[in-house]
Amino acid sequence: MAEPITSTLDEEQQRIAGDALRGTVVDLIDLSLIAKQAHWNVIGPNFRSVHLALDELVTAAREFTDSVAERATAIGVSPDGRASTVAQQSSAAGFGDGWQADSAVIEAIVKNLAAVIARLRSRIDATEKADLVTQDMLIEIAARLEQLHWMWQAQVATVPK
Amino acid sequence: MAEPITSTLDEEQQRIAGDALRGTVVDLIDLSLIAKQAHWNVIGPNFRSVHLALDELVTAAREFTDSVAERATAIGVSPDGRASTVAQQSSAAGFGDGWQADSAVIEAIVKNLAAVIARLRSRIDATEKADLVTQDMLIEIAARLEQLHWMWQAQVATVPK
Amino acid sequence: MAEPITSTLDEEQQRIAGDALRGTVVDLIDLSLIAKQAHWNVIGPNFRSVHLALDELVTAAREFTDSVAERATAIGVSPDGRASTVAQQSSAAGFGDGWQADSAVIEAIVKNLAAVIARLRSRIDATEKADLVTQDMLIEIAARLEQLHWMWQAQVATVPK
Amino acid sequence: MAEPITSTLDEEQQRIAGDALRGTVVDLIDLSLIAKQAHWNVIGPNFRSVHLALDELVTAAREFTDSVAERATAIGVSPDGRASTVAQQSSAAGFGDGWQADSAVIEAIVKNLAAVIARLRSRIDATEKADLVTQDMLIEIAARLEQLHWMWQAQVATVPK
Amino acid sequence: MAEPITSTLDEEQQRIAGDALRGTVVDLIDLSLIAKQAHWNVIGPNFRSVHLALDELVTAAREFTDSVAERATAIGVSPDGRASTVAQQSSAAGFGDGWQADSAVIEAIVKNLAAVIARLRSRIDATEKADLVTQDMLIEIAARLEQLHWMWQAQVATVPK
Amino acid sequence: MAEPITSTLDEEQQRIAGDALRGTVVDLIDLSLIAKQAHWNVIGPNFRSVHLALDELVTAAREFTDSVAERATAIGVSPDGRASTVAQQSSAAGFGDGWQADSAVIEAIVKNLAAVIARLRSRIDATEKADLVTQDMLIEIAARLEQLHWMWQAQVATVPK
Amino acid sequence: MAEPITSTLDEEQQRIAGDALRGTVVDLIDLSLIAKQAHWNVIGPNFRSVHLALDELVTAAREFTDSVAERATAIGVSPDGRASTVAQQSSAAGFGDGWQADSAVIEAIVKNLAAVIARLRSRIDATEKADLVTQDMLIEIAARLEQLHWMWQAQVATVPK
Amino acid sequence: MAEPITSTLDEEQQRIAGDALRGTVVDLIDLSLIAKQAHWNVIGPNFRSVHLALDELVTAAREFTDSVAERATAIGVSPDGRASTVAQQSSAAGFGDGWQADSAVIEAIVKNLAAVIARLRSRIDATEKADLVTQDMLIEIAARLEQLHWMWQAQVATVPK
Amino acid sequence: MAEPITSTLDEEQQRIAGDALRGTVVDLIDLSLIAKQAHWNVIGPNFRSVHLALDELVTAAREFTDSVAERATAIGVSPDGRASTVAQQSSAAGFGDGWQADSAVIEAIVKNLAAVIARLRSRIDATEKADLVTQDMLIEIAARLEQLHWMWQAQVATVPK
Amino acid sequence: MAEPITSTLDEEQQRIAGDALRGTVVDLIDLSLIAKQAHWNVIGPNFRSVHLALDELVTAAREFTDSVAERATAIGVSPDGRASTVAQQSSAAGFGDGWQADSAVIEAIVKNLAAVIARLRSRIDATEKADLVTQDMLIEIAARLEQLHWMWQAQVATVPK
Amino acid sequence: MAEPITSTLDEEQQRIAGDALRGTVVDLIDLSLIAKQAHWNVIGPNFRSVHLALDELVTAAREFTDSVAERATAIGVSPDGRASTVAQQSSAAGFGDGWQADSAVIEAIVKNLAAVIARLRSRIDATEKADLVTQDMLIEIAARLEQLHWMWQAQVATVPK
Amino acid sequence: MAEPITSTLDEEQQRIAGDALRGTVVDLIDLSLIAKQAHWNVIGPNFRSVHLALDELVTAAREFTDSVAERATAIGVSPDGRASTVAQQSSAAGFGDGWQADSAVIEAIVKNLAAVIARLRSRIDATEKADLVTQDMLIEIAARLEQLHWMWQAQVATVPK
Repeated sequence: MAEPITSTLDEEQQRIAGDALRGTVVDLIDLSLIAKQAHWNVIGPNFRSVHLALDELVTAAREFTDSVAERATAIGVSPDGRASTVAQQSSAAGFGDGWQADSAVIEAIVKNLAAVIARLRSRIDATEKADLVTQDMLIEIAARLEQLHWMWQAQVATVPK
Repeated sequence: MAEPITSTLDEEQQRIAGDALRGTVVDLIDLSLIAKQAHWNVIGPNFRSVHLALDELVTAAREFTDSVAERATAIGVSPDGRASTVAQQSSAAGFGDGWQADSAVIEAIVKNLAAVIARLRSRIDATEKADLVTQDMLIEIAARLEQLHWMWQAQVATVPK
Repeated sequence: MAEPITSTLDEEQQRIAGDALRGTVVDLIDLSLIAKQAHWNVIGPNFRSVHLALDELVTAAREFTDSVAERATAIGVSPDGRASTVAQQSSAAGFGDGWQADSAVIEAIVKNLAAVIARLRSRIDATEKADLVTQDMLIEIAARLEQLHWMWQAQVATVPK
Repeated sequence: MAEPITSTLDEEQQRIAGDALRGTVVDLIDLSLIAKQAHWNVIGPNFRSVHLALDELVTAAREFTDSVAERATAIGVSPDGRASTVAQQSSAAGFGDGWQADSAVIEAIVKNLAAVIARLRSRIDATEKADLVTQDMLIEIAARLEQLHWMWQAQVATVPK
Repeated sequence: MAEPITSTLDEEQQRIAGDALRGTVVDLIDLSLIAKQAHWNVIGPNFRSVHLALDELVTAAREFTDSVAERATAIGVSPDGRASTVAQQSSAAGFGDGWQADSAVIEAIVKNLAAVIARLRSRIDATEKADLVTQDMLIEIAARLEQLHWMWQAQVATVPK
Repeated sequence: MAEPITSTLDEEQQRIAGDALRGTVVDLIDLSLIAKQAHWNVIGPNFRSVHLALDELVTAAREFTDSVAERATAIGVSPDGRASTVAQQSSAAGFGDGWQADSAVIEAIVKNLAAVIARLRSRIDATEKADLVTQDMLIEIAARLEQLHWMWQAQVATVPK
Repeated sequence: MAEPITSTLDEEQQRIAGDALRGTVVDLIDLSLIAKQAHWNVIGPNFRSVHLALDELVTAAREFTDSVAERATAIGVSPDGRASTVAQQSSAAGFGDGWQADSAVIEAIVKNLAAVIARLRSRIDATEKADLVTQDMLIEIAARLEQLHWMWQAQVATVPK
Repeated sequence: MAEPITSTLDEEQQRIAGDALRGTVVDLIDLSLIAKQAHWNVIGPNFRSVHLALDELVTAAREFTDSVAERATAIGVSPDGRASTVAQQSSAAGFGDGWQADSAVIEAIVKNLAAVIARLRSRIDATEKADLVTQDMLIEIAARLEQLHWMWQAQVATVPK
Repeated sequence: MAEPITSTLDEEQQRIAGDALRGTVVDLIDLSLIAKQAHWNVIGPNFRSVHLALDELVTAAREFTDSVAERATAIGVSPDGRASTVAQQSSAAGFGDGWQADSAVIEAIVKNLAAVIARLRSRIDATEKADLVTQDMLIEIAARLEQLHWMWQAQVATVPK
Repeated sequence: MAEPITSTLDEEQQRIAGDALRGTVVDLIDLSLIAKQAHWNVIGPNFRSVHLALDELVTAAREFTDSVAERATAIGVSPDGRASTVAQQSSAAGFGDGWQADSAVIEAIVKNLAAVIARLRSRIDATEKADLVTQDMLIEIAARLEQLHWMWQAQVATVPK
Repeated sequence: MAEPITSTLDEEQQRIAGDALRGTVVDLIDLSLIAKQAHWNVIGPNFRSVHLALDELVTAAREFTDSVAERATAIGVSPDGRASTVAQQSSAAGFGDGWQADSAVIEAIVKNLAAVIARLRSRIDATEKADLVTQDMLIEIAARLEQLHWMWQAQVATVPK
Repeated sequence: MAEPITSTLDEEQQRIAGDALRGTVVDLIDLSLIAKQAHWNVIGPNFRSVHLALDELVTAAREFTDSVAERATAIGVSPDGRASTVAQQSSAAGFGDGWQADSAVIEAIVKNLAAVIARLRSRIDATEKADLVTQDMLIEIAARLEQLHWMWQAQVATVPK
């Protein structure tokens, strides 16, 4: 039976772009939940700085989630961002239980960002042929997440001798 | 070993209030994910109205999640809002797969709100003795969720003959 | 026949909270109409100060009216704020005809606030058992109206010798 | 005895303009109370849309009430907007008791707007000779209320075959 | 020689509307200078209230001055608002030298407003035939100045016995 | 068959006011398209000044278009602002093809404003008897367009010797 | 003779990008006029929702028109957005005469968006080689218009069985 | 002799609530002075973070001081927040002389918050019977101060092994 | 008899600072009236630029007038800014009658600014010994007026060969 | 041992400027506490006006306190604004116990402002040689406090006969 | 030794993208310094227009500088924007010494923009293979700079005959 | 040949003030470039705090640069802020190449601020006789830079034993 929302993409393009977008929705929701989890559970001398920076990450992740999910709908593909889907399909690296030292939080966030960016990069390649509009959106998200990756990594980096 | 954050509550009070708060964190995150899922997947003649109203619900759920999680930390209890925890422990009613008709969305939201409110009401009773500050926060959340429950139910209600 | 909006309260709780809320709706609308009437008809050396302060009272009364009426709907009770209902059921003290001297206006406002607060206080007691959410809202209104009562009374008060 | 506020109008002009303004004050207050009553008691599939549109009507009616009442004072005439005066003298069409279906609400609002506009139109004629400043204000109000009348009627209108 | 700015009005209409506008420019500038003078020189128990209200009058007078002067230019008539022109041609009632008691200030402002309004009223009559656009602007100014006249007079008015 | 939106005007009044409003909608849309065309195609030493001033004209024309079209609907008359209608019925003076020198742009805008104002003036006369509300709106538009006409003409005016 | 604005593109690139941009200017102006036409003439139960959504479309179309026209100028190509050009060259689907039922409006808007998007998609392909800056702008516009297309189509979509 | 401001509380209730409020005024003023003192005198690697966080504490303390003092007046009790009263009666823990290392500042703030919260908690118990409005305000203050207590303590906390 | 407002300055200091401030009030009011006169009467190719720049001068002159007049009151000296005083005592250079070419306006403004600045400079010297607070205010005004002087002069300046 | 913050001032300059700044911190904190005390305890016919004006004084005093304290730190001097220091060292005139009549409040504020200004004036003299940056800040504070002194004194001043 | 910030790009991609970004940082800083230099030193009849337009260019250049420099860090490359680096490596065209006529300024800005755009265009080509995220950012900057190039060139352009 | 912008200063005063201002322009531009360089290249545990604080320094330096350069023009002196001038003439202390540890950044900023302040202090002395307006501006800049110097130094300071 026909899908309710039509698209200018052909079936194959729609499948490729749709998969990229659905996967990104899941990754970004997980990233926002992990960042909030860290926002609440971080302790240590850099508490305030890390606590605030995590909310900037949450804001970014939430806004991108909405863009990506609505891009999926725009090409006729239903996005799935329910808790169980996120729990099963996320490519993020996860986050430990209970209170966490600030240094451990920074490491965990760098690792999660790296994992999500890696998937995003491969989806940018995948969508080049399928849908330039989708690709452009993923490029914009990569730009911001790679900027955040630098900012988090900068906190644990040292000047090479 | 001693917990990192101390509290003016005694151990029993802390346990009761902590359980109420941790449970509410999970319910509210799930509510926000369900509302976003509906926001993207709703179709039908009332699309625009329902689509917009769902974002008001998301906003409310997210703000309350933060208040409740930070109340948990304030009494020395670590909140857990990770995807897998939410997927396993939520008392919300859930949401169907794929595109959903607007009328089905309204019904599902009414049902989810009712489930979350019911748990909230029992936690308001439970925390009366344990911690008035926690109880007051839960009362404020109930006030808003019950208002939203009316607004959603009003869309499917009919005047009694 | 079933009421269109359901509630988590039982029938008795709903009746008590509903009565308190419906009565408060009427009182607050009357208070806002009286304050506007005074706002237009006050004359005398303190005209500007009284004229401006009355609009702050109007703003407060209108906002609380909306909260209280929507709390009634949230527990499944229809509020009634029509002119004839207000004219017949208000517990406010009323306001004289035509132009009024500023001192007379102040006295009238103090008296009206006192009357409305007295009813509010008894409704706070009445709803303790019936519905903590309703009670909490009435407490918040009392806090603001008692603050305004002081501010108006302060204008006619003298330092005890 | 002399009235407290003097006017550049002669006695007859003042009487005509004063009557028009006092009548309009009453009608507009009633309109705002009816719109609020509808705002709270509406149910049905178009709940959200109607609920929001009613508050725009409330805002318009309240702002015009203030302008009109203060125009009365500016020409030395005391306005009367107390609940009992409104209940007795309003030319609005009124509003039913309890919960109301959205379609019934729309009909009632169209009817009330039509009634208030009709009176306003006759007052615009009446004040032409008496006071151009008053007339200009009533014209501005008619412009907005007739716009709102169209918007409400448009919801029940059908394209002629 | 031809005037630099052309107008849709004929010569007679332009003369009548132009005179009304040029006269109003002068009156409003004087009103704004008098109100500022009073704003600085008022003393007495109602200092703060009067001081603040005078700036509202200044703001109104300045905004209307600009509208009226630019209406003159729009019909091809050069406005003149220089100090010496204002000093010679204003129809305002003037303001005394040095510090002034608040009660004296209120009386002076009421008198100045009355004088300016009287001229405005006769200009509204004069421009009816000449230019409805100019007349409409003068009506709007009269509406605001008569409102301010009431507010100032209300401070010295007493309720008739 | 009955029109979908009713009006307090009689048939003849509705026809006169409706024609005036429909004609003004067309003229104002054309004015906004011409101003945008000039905004993009102007070159020359006063580029920046003219480029910016044109957007103020666009803003004014667009806002008035909306007011006028919604006034038509408010009296039960359907407005027509489609491209082909505008192309065929506009009374504006038009605008040349391709890049235009700033001085040529100023002349063209003065000419277009003059043409639209002339039609507006005759519609103000025509609607006096038919509908004061419509007339008042046209007067307000004439006030602003005549102000803009002066501002544009001032750029090419010279002081008479 | 030399064009007044130079470009970093060669002649062929300029021709291709210029054609794409000039065509898009025309389509977007027509889209904004059609959406405004619908905004005024829609009637039916979803009036308010459709009326508001149309203004969001107008806003988007107007902003993109400006970007695209100024991109044309930036590469030395004069854009043409005059009424007659739009009437003759638009690739939009058009809009019927007079009052329109809300369901008919939704269908018409979906059809117009689809037509404009189809042309945009082919222009994105065409400009890939000619000018990446122009292409990037068209991709961004496609992203938004396809999002709006989904939102409008969602109102008439049904869940597949 | 009669007190100038009357209250709906009886004498005993007024005494209990009054004492709680007067004591809280003193504690909160001291807290704000201590936080400002720390804001100026902190030095060390976390200077910026601590310096900024202290101003958030100052803002909170000042806003609560005003609420609490005006609640005292609202029940007819004169608050006393003069420097000497604060110096003698505060239950805060105090702050050392001269420049302070950031770690010492954090410890001092945690200690001062703990002392003020402890008193607040006992006043919440004390006012339960005397005045629910006062109690509700103290609960709200406790909620915020306990949140701040966690945030400050989090900076010196370590994850339990 | 004693002046109503006392001052920390001695009689001689008060006289010197008072004279400087009273003179500056007059000059600045005249400057603002001249700038407004120019704002309305300027014509020529730079109309828009000059028209806008004049309002920035008006704003500056008005704000400084208020500061200076209130500094006079703060040292117990009554300022005089009435039209006749300004007409008689201003040290500004004046402005011609009727429409003025943009180049003539620029010259006139440069001349008026130079005249006012010259007086300001001598008052800065005069108040050095009398009152540093007054001097500091005059220095701040000179800074802004000299900046404006440059901006106006820059329009008629040419690069030295 | 070396002080933690270095300064471009020599030891003697630092001592003089530091003393002036430390003394001013104490005076301004006391002034803000006194103004708040008055804000809460004032009663009488001018309650509202005085109540509001006191908060403007509080705002000014608090902002200056911060500037002055941070100026002390900028020259390497630790400021001391703790309650006991303020209670012992303030040069303000103090404020009576309990409720105060509005006239008594005005007198007390005038007296406190005069005392603080007197000290400020002598510190302006003292810092001339020591540090122009510090002196400039004290001059700015004197300007504002002397303005406030006039505004408060104006309420009790009478026009000399 | 390992660089402190890691990147998803391989070494060759990082080198190409890094070079493009480092070069762009230098060009944009120089562009902003040149535009500021012109902003201060421009004289002539179009002073105001050019002076204001230059600050828009400064704002654009500064924002892009930050984006580009932080993109370099995001891929692990240290940007260098120090004065001496800019002085030595910029590809901008430079700006003359001392006061400059407005026409000379316009020419210089057009030339500088053209030089920077040319380099940007070649870097867009270079980064296509290396890093799409970097390329996308450079495309966005080119879009804005080419728009500004048109706006500046438009001031010296003439319509072809 | 005559300079294009005239000044109220004599030649010697102009030379002294001009030198002070031109030198400050150079120093402040260099300071802003150094702070941006540090903003991008800082790494280490305090990355976020230092990164943010550097942008506050950039903002301050940029605003002061503009004030100082425009003060130079106001006294007829052309400022020079081009990259090569800054590279050659700055009195700032410079900044190292490549990534920098946060502690090294703090030290470098403290050193640069100290160098710029030292020059500013000597210029404040130099301009005392030449131009009080220039001196006042330099004093204001010193106030802010010395405040920033304390804030940066506070991060590396320790409490004396």
